[in-house]
Amino acid sequence: MLMGIRLKIPRNHCRGESLRIRERLIRGEEAGVVAKAGLIAHGRGEAFDYLIGEASIPPAIFAARAAAASILLASRPVISVNGNVAALAPEALVRLSKATGAPLEVNLFYRTRRRERAVRSALLKAGAKEVLGVGERASATIPELFSDRRKVDPRGIYSADVVIVPLEDGDRAMALRKMGKFVIAVDLNPLSRTSQVADITIVDNVLRALPNIASAVEELRQLQKAELKGILERFDNRKNLSETLLFIRERLASIAKED
Amino acid sequence: MLMGIRLKIPRNHCRGESLRIRERLIRGEEAGVVAKAGLIAHGRGEAFDYLIGEASIPPAIFAARAAAASILLASRPVISVNGNVAALAPEALVRLSKATGAPLEVNLFYRTRRRERAVRSALLKAGAKEVLGVGERASATIPELFSDRRKVDPRGIYSADVVIVPLEDGDRAMALRKMGKFVIAVDLNPLSRTSQVADITIVDNVLRALPNIASAVEELRQLQKAELKGILERFDNRKNLSETLLFIRERLASIAKED
Repeated sequence: MLMGIRLKIPRNHCRGESLRIRERLIRGEEAGVVAKAGLIAHGRGEAFDYLIGEASIPPAIFAARAAAASILLASRPVISVNGNVAALAPEALVRLSKATGAPLEVNLFYRTRRRERAVRSALLKAGAKEVLGVGERASATIPELFSDRRKVDPRGIYSADVVIVPLEDGDRAMALRKMGKFVIAVDLNPLSRTSQVADITIVDNVLRALPNIASAVEELRQLQKAELKGILERFDNRKNLSETLLFIRERLASIAKED
Repeated sequence: MLMGIRLKIPRNHCRGESLRIRERLIRGEEAGVVAKAGLIAHGRGEAFDYLIGEASIPPAIFAARAAAASILLASRPVISVNGNVAALAPEALVRLSKATGAPLEVNLFYRTRRRERAVRSALLKAGAKEVLGVGERASATIPELFSDRRKVDPRGIYSADVVIVPLEDGDRAMALRKMGKFVIAVDLNPLSRTSQVADITIVDNVLRALPNIASAVEELRQLQKAELKGILERFDNRKNLSETLLFIRERLASIAKED
């Protein structure tokens, strides 16, 4: 029976923060950091962020903790940076890099010298000491990738064991997996290919997820290796993604409430 | 119990069509038809389109039929055209205009002479005979609106009784309602303010919704006024939006399937 259904829309939902972030991204596009396709990708993220309630939901916090454990266990963790995340969260990237010792590496789908430099300067402005993957340094190649994302730094992603990929495309996440890398993805769409192929998927806004990982790294730093491995073993990415979908379902249910 | 949950992701989902549409929009931005904020808005639409399965779901077909009835009952229906819909579906707009006799009127949030002309030429190229709302013709004003969307054509939206607004912002949909217009919105987000305030909300991609309305107009044309009124009276927008949300819920449930 669908009679008597009423919609319960949150009336005082504040769009201000979302509008400010949108403005930041448009300025990033004008500065050459963000690609036009990056603006469309951001819109997809906004919609999914809305569906999870624009907050870090329990599965995202759980995944960020598992990500922190895997980074602490890694020999060579690296953070891959694209235009959108550089425009949205440069400070959070630098904080995570400092907390983990993982270097920042520029990796762009639409790679031009101008964009490389624009992304690097956004990171340097936010306090980064070094940025990998710029110019001649991106001399190694990831097999099976046809976009410019295949170009990686031999000292960075190429030799990394754990790669943190905020806002990644599915092809590249898959290529990194095939190279034997352990992939930590941040992606607001729990159904995307990136989300499906990553070892750990954090379904959250990068502006919340990156600080969550950094805080978890600081908290877990004193643990023994065996304890960190225990945290990782208890994490099941498929199960965690299912819990995310169920969370969204329940949220829609509370909006479209039957009475 | 969340143990044993498995994800069932459609493996052969074809992203080709979605990528082609995305390319069309980026070309539209380069041609001055689409605003940068329009690219972000498109991404939001893509996410919701994905959630409904990139197909016209039953509530959308039902709403398109009610929309057709209201257009056939109208004295002065008008179709409001923004940059995104002009870039995505100019042919569908022209077909709907011809099927209904409703003129096309340019109405832009970020209005410049250049964009007005770019939108008009996209419509003329697709076969439109006349385009309202360009230049000096947009001389009337919708009360209570602060963006350039308040500028309307005295022969068009200003004196219309039914306004079809594919891809509208919530403030304008509300302002049109307050002027006593009957508002038909096409919006992929069933939770948006536009969706909530419109008289009839079609939660669908404009590329499917506009042809659906045109086909329904052609089919219902032979009906008597009383029969058309009957169709309209049986339509309840709040109930239809709730059914849309329930559809999305069920779809998420079938993906995150418990066993």
